[in-house]
Amino acid sequence: MQNFISIESIGYMAAVLTTIAFVPQLIKTWVSKSADDVSLVMFILFITGVILWCIYGWEIHAFPVIIANIVTCILATLILSLKIYFENFENETKKKDVQ
Amino acid sequence: MQNFISIESIGYMAAVLTTIAFVPQLIKTWVSKSADDVSLVMFILFITGVILWCIYGWEIHAFPVIIANIVTCILATLILSLKIYFENFENETKKKDVQ
Repeated sequence: MQNFISIESIGYMAAVLTTIAFVPQLIKTWVSKSADDVSLVMFILFITGVILWCIYGWEIHAFPVIIANIVTCILATLILSLKIYFENFENETKKKDVQ
Repeated sequence: MQNFISIESIGYMAAVLTTIAFVPQLIKTWVSKSADDVSLVMFILFITGVILWCIYGWEIHAFPVIIANIVTCILATLILSLKIYFENFENETKKKDVQ
Protein backbone atom coordinates (compact mmCIF):
# COMPACT_ATOMS: atom_id res chain seq x y z
CA MET A 1 0.00 0.00 0.00
CA GLN A 2 2.96 2.23 0.75
CA ASN A 3 3.83 2.22 -2.96
CA PHE A 4 0.60 4.01 -3.76
CA ILE A 5 -0.18 6.00 -0.63
CA SER A 6 2.59 7.53 1.47
CA ILE A 7 2.29 7.87 5.26
CA GLU A 8 2.39 11.66 4.91
CA SER A 9 -0.49 11.67 2.43
CA ILE A 10 -2.58 9.65 4.95
CA GLY A 11 -1.82 12.37 7.53
CA TYR A 12 -2.82 15.10 5.06
CA MET A 13 -6.06 13.28 4.12
CA ALA A 14 -6.84 12.87 7.84
CA ALA A 15 -6.21 16.60 8.46
CA VAL A 16 -8.35 17.63 5.45
CA LEU A 17 -11.26 15.32 6.47
CA THR A 18 -11.34 16.35 10.16
CA THR A 19 -11.21 19.99 9.01
CA ILE A 20 -13.78 20.04 6.17
CA ALA A 21 -16.12 17.88 8.32
CA PHE A 22 -17.29 21.13 9.94
CA VAL A 23 -18.47 22.62 6.60
CA PRO A 24 -21.68 20.47 6.34
CA GLN A 25 -22.46 21.31 10.01
CA LEU A 26 -22.01 25.03 9.25
CA ILE A 27 -24.26 24.78 6.15
CA LYS A 28 -26.89 22.74 8.07
CA THR A 29 -26.95 25.26 10.93
CA TRP A 30 -27.13 28.21 8.48
CA VAL A 31 -29.96 26.66 6.42
CA SER A 32 -32.05 25.26 9.32
CA LYS A 33 -31.36 28.36 11.49
CA SER A 34 -31.20 25.99 14.45
CA ALA A 35 -28.46 24.28 16.44
CA ASP A 36 -30.40 23.36 19.59
CA ASP A 37 -29.14 19.76 19.48
CA VAL A 38 -25.52 20.87 19.05
CA SER A 39 -23.72 20.96 22.40
CA LEU A 40 -22.42 24.42 23.42
CA VAL A 41 -19.90 22.82 25.82
CA MET A 42 -18.62 20.56 23.01
CA PHE A 43 -17.80 23.53 20.80
CA ILE A 44 -16.23 25.57 23.65
CA LEU A 45 -13.96 22.63 24.62
CA PHE A 46 -13.22 21.82 20.97
CA ILE A 47 -12.32 25.43 20.02
CA THR A 48 -10.07 25.71 23.13
CA GLY A 49 -8.35 22.45 22.12
CA VAL A 50 -7.94 23.63 18.51
CA ILE A 51 -6.35 26.92 19.70
CA LEU A 52 -3.90 24.83 21.79
CA TRP A 53 -3.14 22.71 18.66
CA CYS A 54 -2.32 25.98 16.81
CA ILE A 55 0.07 27.02 19.64
CA TYR A 56 1.61 23.52 19.66
CA GLY A 57 1.99 23.58 15.85
CA TRP A 58 3.59 27.04 16.05
CA GLU A 59 6.05 25.91 18.75
CA ILE A 60 7.14 22.78 16.83
CA HIS A 61 7.08 24.69 13.48
CA ALA A 62 4.53 22.25 11.99
CA PHE A 63 2.76 24.50 9.51
CA PRO A 64 0.23 21.90 8.27
CA VAL A 65 -0.90 21.53 11.92
CA ILE A 66 -1.23 25.33 12.24
CA ILE A 67 -3.12 25.79 8.95
CA ALA A 68 -5.52 22.83 9.46
CA ASN A 69 -6.31 24.01 13.01
CA ILE A 70 -6.76 27.68 12.03
CA VAL A 71 -9.35 26.61 9.41
CA THR A 72 -11.05 24.25 11.93
CA CYS A 73 -11.04 27.05 14.51
CA ILE A 74 -12.72 29.49 12.07
CA LEU A 75 -15.38 26.93 11.04
CA ALA A 76 -16.11 25.82 14.64
CA THR A 77 -16.28 29.46 15.83
CA LEU A 78 -18.74 30.27 13.02
CA ILE A 79 -20.96 27.30 14.02
CA LEU A 80 -20.81 28.35 17.71
CA SER A 81 -21.62 31.99 16.79
CA LEU A 82 -24.59 30.92 14.62
CA LYS A 83 -25.86 28.66 17.44
CA ILE A 84 -25.70 31.52 19.98
CA TYR A 85 -27.21 34.00 17.46
CA PHE A 86 -30.11 31.75 16.40
CA GLU A 87 -30.90 30.78 20.01
CA ASN A 88 -31.05 34.45 21.06
CA PHE A 89 -32.92 35.44 17.88
CA GLU A 90 -35.46 32.63 18.41
CA ASN A 91 -35.89 33.70 22.05
CA GLU A 92 -36.55 37.28 20.88
CA THR A 93 -39.14 36.02 18.37
CA LYS A 94 -40.82 33.89 21.05
CA LYS A 95 -40.93 36.87 23.44
CA LYS A 96 -42.55 38.99 20.70
CA ASP A 97 -45.08 36.23 20.03
CA VAL A 98 -46.05 36.16 23.71
CA GLN A 99 -46.42 39.97 23.94
CA MET B 1 5.95 30.43 29.86
CA GLN B 2 8.07 27.47 28.80
CA ASN B 3 9.34 27.19 32.39
CA PHE B 4 5.85 26.33 33.56
CA ILE B 5 4.23 24.67 30.57
CA SER B 6 6.23 22.48 28.16
CA ILE B 7 5.42 22.31 24.45
CA GLU B 8 4.55 18.64 24.84
CA SER B 9 2.07 19.35 27.64
CA ILE B 10 0.34 21.89 25.35
CA GLY B 11 0.03 19.12 22.75
CA TYR B 12 -1.38 16.71 25.35
CA MET B 13 -3.86 19.33 26.63
CA ALA B 14 -4.94 19.98 23.03
CA ALA B 15 -5.42 16.24 22.40
CA VAL B 16 -7.40 15.79 25.65
CA LEU B 17 -9.67 18.80 24.95
CA THR B 18 -10.46 17.90 21.31
CA THR B 19 -11.19 14.32 22.49
CA ILE B 20 -13.32 14.94 25.62
CA ALA B 21 -15.22 17.69 23.72
CA PHE B 22 -17.41 14.90 22.30
CA VAL B 23 -18.55 13.74 25.78
CA PRO B 24 -21.00 16.67 26.37
CA GLN B 25 -22.41 16.13 22.84
CA LEU B 26 -22.90 12.44 23.61
CA ILE B 27 -24.62 13.24 26.93
CA LYS B 28 -26.80 15.95 25.31
CA THR B 29 -27.87 13.58 22.52
CA TRP B 30 -28.56 10.76 25.02
CA VAL B 31 -30.60 12.99 27.37
CA SER B 32 -32.56 14.95 24.72
CA LYS B 33 -32.99 11.81 22.54
CA SER B 34 -32.55 14.09 19.53
CA ALA B 35 -29.71 15.04 17.22
CA ASP B 36 -31.66 16.49 14.29
CA ASP B 37 -29.47 19.61 14.19
CA VAL B 38 -26.27 17.55 14.23
CA SER B 39 -24.98 17.02 10.68
CA LEU B 40 -24.79 13.37 9.57
CA VAL B 41 -22.23 14.26 6.87
CA MET B 42 -20.07 16.04 9.46
CA PHE B 43 -19.82 12.91 11.61
CA ILE B 44 -19.22 10.58 8.64
CA LEU B 45 -16.37 12.81 7.36
CA PHE B 46 -15.01 13.32 10.90
CA ILE B 47 -15.01 9.59 11.78
CA THR B 48 -13.31 8.75 8.43
CA GLY B 49 -10.66 11.41 9.19
CA VAL B 50 -10.17 10.10 12.73
CA ILE B 51 -9.68 6.52 11.41
CA LEU B 52 -7.02 7.90 9.02
CA TRP B 53 -5.36 9.69 12.01
CA CYS B 54 -5.23 6.28 13.77
CA ILE B 55 -3.57 4.69 10.71
CA TYR B 56 -1.14 7.64 10.47
CA GLY B 57 -0.37 7.41 14.22
CA TRP B 58 0.22 3.66 13.87
CA GLU B 59 2.56 4.14 10.87
CA ILE B 60 4.67 6.82 12.62
CA HIS B 61 4.49 4.94 15.98
CA ALA B 62 2.89 7.93 17.72
CA PHE B 63 0.88 6.20 20.43
CA PRO B 64 -0.70 9.36 21.92
CA VAL B 65 -2.10 10.09 18.42
CA ILE B 66 -3.49 6.53 18.20
CA ILE B 67 -5.03 6.55 21.70
CA ALA B 68 -6.58 10.05 21.41
CA ASN B 69 -8.07 9.20 18.01
CA ILE B 70 -9.39 5.77 19.08
CA VAL B 71 -11.26 7.47 21.98
CA THR B 72 -12.54 10.23 19.63
CA CYS B 73 -13.60 7.57 17.11
CA ILE B 74 -15.59 5.65 19.78
CA LEU B 75 -17.30 8.83 21.07
CA ALA B 76 -18.11 10.15 17.56
CA THR B 77 -19.42 6.72 16.46
CA LEU B 78 -21.67 6.56 19.57
CA ILE B 79 -23.09 10.04 18.77
CA LEU B 80 -23.67 9.06 15.12
CA SER B 81 -25.31 5.76 16.18
CA LEU B 82 -27.59 7.56 18.66
CA LYS B 83 -28.53 10.14 15.98
CA ILE B 84 -29.46 7.38 13.50
CA TYR B 85 -31.28 5.38 16.21
CA PHE B 86 -33.31 8.32 17.56
CA GLU B 87 -34.22 9.54 14.06
CA ASN B 88 -35.50 6.08 13.10
CA PHE B 89 -37.18 5.59 16.49
CA GLU B 90 -38.88 9.00 16.21
CA ASN B 91 -40.00 8.19 12.67
CA GLU B 92 -41.50 4.93 13.97
CA THR B 93 -43.33 6.84 16.73
CA LYS B 94 -44.60 9.43 14.23
CA LYS B 95 -45.84 6.65 11.93
CA LYS B 96 -47.69 5.06 14.86
CA ASP B 97 -49.21 8.44 15.80
CA VAL B 98 -50.52 8.86 12.24
CA GLN B 99 -52.04 5.34 12.12
